[in-house]
Amino acid sequence: MTRERRVITGFSNPTVKALRALREKKHRKAAGKFLVEGLRLLTDARECGHVPEMLVLADRRDPHPLLTRLEEAVEANGGEIIETTPDILAKITGKDNPQAVAGVFAEFDTSLAALDRSSADIWLVAQALRDPGNLGTMLRTGDAIGAGGLILIDDCADPFSVEAVRASMGALFTQRIARARWDEFETWLRREEGQLVAASLRDAQPYRGAPYAAPCFVMVGNESRGLPEAYEMACDLRVTMPMKGRADSLNAAVAAAVLGYEVLHALDG
Amino acid sequence: MTRERRVITGFSNPTVKALRALREKKHRKAAGKFLVEGLRLLTDARECGHVPEMLVLADRRDPHPLLTRLEEAVEANGGEIIETTPDILAKITGKDNPQAVAGVFAEFDTSLAALDRSSADIWLVAQALRDPGNLGTMLRTGDAIGAGGLILIDDCADPFSVEAVRASMGALFTQRIARARWDEFETWLRREEGQLVAASLRDAQPYRGAPYAAPCFVMVGNESRGLPEAYEMACDLRVTMPMKGRADSLNAAVAAAVLGYEVLHALDG
Repeated sequence: MTRERRVITGFSNPTVKALRALREKKHRKAAGKFLVEGLRLLTDARECGHVPEMLVLADRRDPHPLLTRLEEAVEANGGEIIETTPDILAKITGKDNPQAVAGVFAEFDTSLAALDRSSADIWLVAQALRDPGNLGTMLRTGDAIGAGGLILIDDCADPFSVEAVRASMGALFTQRIARARWDEFETWLRREEGQLVAASLRDAQPYRGAPYAAPCFVMVGNESRGLPEAYEMACDLRVTMPMKGRADSLNAAVAAAVLGYEVLHALDG
Repeated sequence: MTRERRVITGFSNPTVKALRALREKKHRKAAGKFLVEGLRLLTDARECGHVPEMLVLADRRDPHPLLTRLEEAVEANGGEIIETTPDILAKITGKDNPQAVAGVFAEFDTSLAALDRSSADIWLVAQALRDPGNLGTMLRTGDAIGAGGLILIDDCADPFSVEAVRASMGALFTQRIARARWDEFETWLRREEGQLVAASLRDAQPYRGAPYAAPCFVMVGNESRGLPEAYEMACDLRVTMPMKGRADSLNAAVAAAVLGYEVLHALDG
């Protein structure tokens, strides 16, 4: 039996304001919630066991069996379903042509303590990564290479931003995410077995055929500055990719992927 | 001897309007010019032999030897140097904190006919790539793997957009760029030797150890839809990367890089 649904038609409704605010990091942090747009991403989430606390539907929408399943999952979970106008949905998502559905999730636990390194052979690590698109792309690559998750060191973009969620193509829900300062991470890393590998130009060996070992933590640095020298020197292995042209570095998400696939091959092969 | 320089202080000056318009594709196309921001990118350009037709400088700026060399190159080339206020520079570049310098270049010849395939062993090819960041990242990767350039098939993002230029990190000036419809490209490709390789899930072999041959054209498809089946079937080789997680594809620029480095290894090794 379908419960009574709340219908919102006013732009100044406090729920609309609260949802719209989730596009900003400080409000996400304060609320401990984030917004996911579109049936495809929400279905990815549901299939990974993540059901939104609140579902916002356009009152004019085409029926879709996956949308019905999503609504059922939210109701079974005791979540709330709200219907509103496409205009208000556009205001919430900040898009001119919003998808017909958005969901609100509680942010995940991103403490290192919640991360079980033995659950995967590869982990991706990003230091001071500023671009949410790069962050989402690293999550997507992590999913593809069977990584356990992404560890964000120092001041990174927000993994719960709309841009990062979108670029992750659903991998936000398959990958673990941890956030830590460098010294916290180093302490945690050295407590158990784990090999820290950096893409580096300093005292590095060729990335191809390097002695990778599981659990392998593949680290890339900030888009402009790369990794601090001290962080590179703390690595167990520094590897370098051929650079045949003028540039001396790759895009951070690209470097993580090229190196990640090499590690996958070494550990699987 | 330094020539007299034009000083612009009015927001409604026609040159300001014309420069500002270069942020839009239709105006770039009409003018056949594009805008490059920042001393670093402009220096990359100069070192690759590309000197801007026009240089726009903030009237309040720190002296820098590379800026002096840039000004000298523009003057030696008969180009124009304009000084203006930081506010007007912000209006031109659309950034709140603009760099102190921007340059205007003539768009390059992007015909296939101008492209000499024998000049490199690897060429990247993108079909209907919509994201200018992905396009710029592919140029940057192309530079790193020693590719000759990037061939844009069908309706792609504009390589001369500010976002693509920025993401290319200067590789716009080291890589050749061609634009063509699929049938034009296919005709051109088959006229001489060349192996067309696609990242694909259809009837594909593992990307690792596949029989790559130079000149090798590495093709990736649209961010949402991938490559049309007919295009994949026209390839000499279809290869696939391991997908260990839920997703069945990588970000387009990531796929191009992982595959591009594999081809580099195969041809170099």
